[in-house]
Amino acid sequence: MKIVLVGCFGHIGYVFRGLERVPSVEIAAVASGSEAPADVLTSLCLEHGQHPVVYRDWQQMFDEVQPDVACIDGPFDKHAEMAAYALAHGIHVFCEKPIALDFAQLAMVRSAWLESGKHIRSMVGLRYADAFLHAYKLVDSGAVGKIKFIRTQKSYKLGRRPDFYKVRKSYGGTIPWVGSHAVDWIMFYSQAAFSAVTAYHDADDNCGHGDLEMVGHALFKMDNGVIADAGIDYLRPAAASTHGDDRVRIAGTSGVLEVRGGKIYLINGDGEQEIVPPPADRDVFSDFILELTTGRPALVTDAQTFALTYAVLLARESADRGKTLEFTGFERS
Amino acid sequence: MKIVLVGCFGHIGYVFRGLERVPSVEIAAVASGSEAPADVLTSLCLEHGQHPVVYRDWQQMFDEVQPDVACIDGPFDKHAEMAAYALAHGIHVFCEKPIALDFAQLAMVRSAWLESGKHIRSMVGLRYADAFLHAYKLVDSGAVGKIKFIRTQKSYKLGRRPDFYKVRKSYGGTIPWVGSHAVDWIMFYSQAAFSAVTAYHDADDNCGHGDLEMVGHALFKMDNGVIADAGIDYLRPAAASTHGDDRVRIAGTSGVLEVRGGKIYLINGDGEQEIVPPPADRDVFSDFILELTTGRPALVTDAQTFALTYAVLLARESADRGKTLEFTGFERS
Repeated sequence: MKIVLVGCFGHIGYVFRGLERVPSVEIAAVASGSEAPADVLTSLCLEHGQHPVVYRDWQQMFDEVQPDVACIDGPFDKHAEMAAYALAHGIHVFCEKPIALDFAQLAMVRSAWLESGKHIRSMVGLRYADAFLHAYKLVDSGAVGKIKFIRTQKSYKLGRRPDFYKVRKSYGGTIPWVGSHAVDWIMFYSQAAFSAVTAYHDADDNCGHGDLEMVGHALFKMDNGVIADAGIDYLRPAAASTHGDDRVRIAGTSGVLEVRGGKIYLINGDGEQEIVPPPADRDVFSDFILELTTGRPALVTDAQTFALTYAVLLARESADRGKTLEFTGFERS
Repeated sequence: MKIVLVGCFGHIGYVFRGLERVPSVEIAAVASGSEAPADVLTSLCLEHGQHPVVYRDWQQMFDEVQPDVACIDGPFDKHAEMAAYALAHGIHVFCEKPIALDFAQLAMVRSAWLESGKHIRSMVGLRYADAFLHAYKLVDSGAVGKIKFIRTQKSYKLGRRPDFYKVRKSYGGTIPWVGSHAVDWIMFYSQAAFSAVTAYHDADDNCGHGDLEMVGHALFKMDNGVIADAGIDYLRPAAASTHGDDRVRIAGTSGVLEVRGGKIYLINGDGEQEIVPPPADRDVFSDFILELTTGRPALVTDAQTFALTYAVLLARESADRGKTLEFTGFERS
């Protein structure tokens, strides 16, 4: 299994963290995906005993190396172009989320995907974080009964962000960037399709970060009746003990489960429990590779990759336009 | 200061809990507000050293006793009629929330209020709960900077509810009944007026409770830009250690404050703190009485009483109609 890496603007680290579970993977080549050198990528590869060829041009790399999988983490506004190019050249894609920054880009990727017969997954690594994965197993085994209500939270420290975060065209917006995880949890736990979204966001008070929205909030109706929302912000104070404050609350007909601070809090017929989750037995990268090589279905599908991207883009549009928007067609599930 | 009590369908207990702070208050008379006898009310009065006259007819009681204040906690669908009658007869009103179950009832109360020159407050006692009141003081003194984002939660055990909960006309709905507190916190902390609301609710899986919605969710835009939501449900498992799980998260430009489990969790420039709040130094009943007798402004105003009622009714309508609704006119603040 030969893979290539493009860029390290986001979560390419998932590849390295997953390598141990798929030792047959060879990182054949890397490219920075921009004008900058690929130093960070090559260092990471060396640390993991990989000795890739370094390309300056990612298209040339795809063409010459003909890898099985392209791992794409270039500039946010290049995800779609890179993914579509890879698919069009018969290469599976493991891509930073969101895989597109607008609907036209998304349609381009989907079109290439439909024609290619290849697979694409976005880096929804937080499905696989210890507590969130264990929560899924609990919920899936009926720990809360029928799910009625899901609330999620992504709260990050702002710090100082690179310039490309300050412009919608290159950043994409806070609902797509930070919110992807929160919206993905909704899809993951509800196992339902999105029906409608109402969202707000607000770029005031962003400490000189241009277009970057400090707060986003998206309220979803799912097609199975579940009510779900995602609270998204960059308001976590610098003094906080961790960078992010990731949470989920899943309320069902026979229990309530929360993930908070890396732990699970479950209340159901068995009483109240605080659960320290076991280390996750899967990760987002190897899960995809193992599906390709062994046929074991990954926890996330191609269809969900498109649905998630569509959902965060539609939520952003809802916030931009100040109105509720309905999901129709392919992008629902 | 002579007061009368009507009914004990909800939170009339606030009156008794506040009596100590206003020892000059005399409960002159009580009525059950329904066909049932007023046994519970009279027992409560005796426990508190009060010896009211018992009336079967609340109108007759208002007419004959001519109290300064009527404390109204009759059947939910009688709040408006009782409040309007009291106001029209020159009596101040302390009323269970929501003070009306539909817009016509609300308009009737407001009209009586405008003509009377008297005051009306609803029983938003959870503003005054130890942690929530202390949180207000912290936020008001700048602990989180400029508020950007407020999320609130009311989660209750369902248990078995009396029959009047099973019918929209007599119950009013879960967003107005349970949600009043959550929506009131939004107004309390943001000190802003409502601008728009998008809400959902869902009466499925309610264990034979008719129209009663098990879940409600209302997303508000405030006129100062604050994004705020209220998550409302009856999904708290019977095995949970407390009846309710009341929460607020207030995120601002320089800090995040949470109320959870009766404690305050504050992160700001001073680091992370877990604060056990001091006992509240005010309560909703005596606060109103003291405003009337000493002129010290209560934490909640007549205008907020109407605004809250309008907000929960508009949120319910948004959920019923499946669309975003705007606030216009008097009811905004």
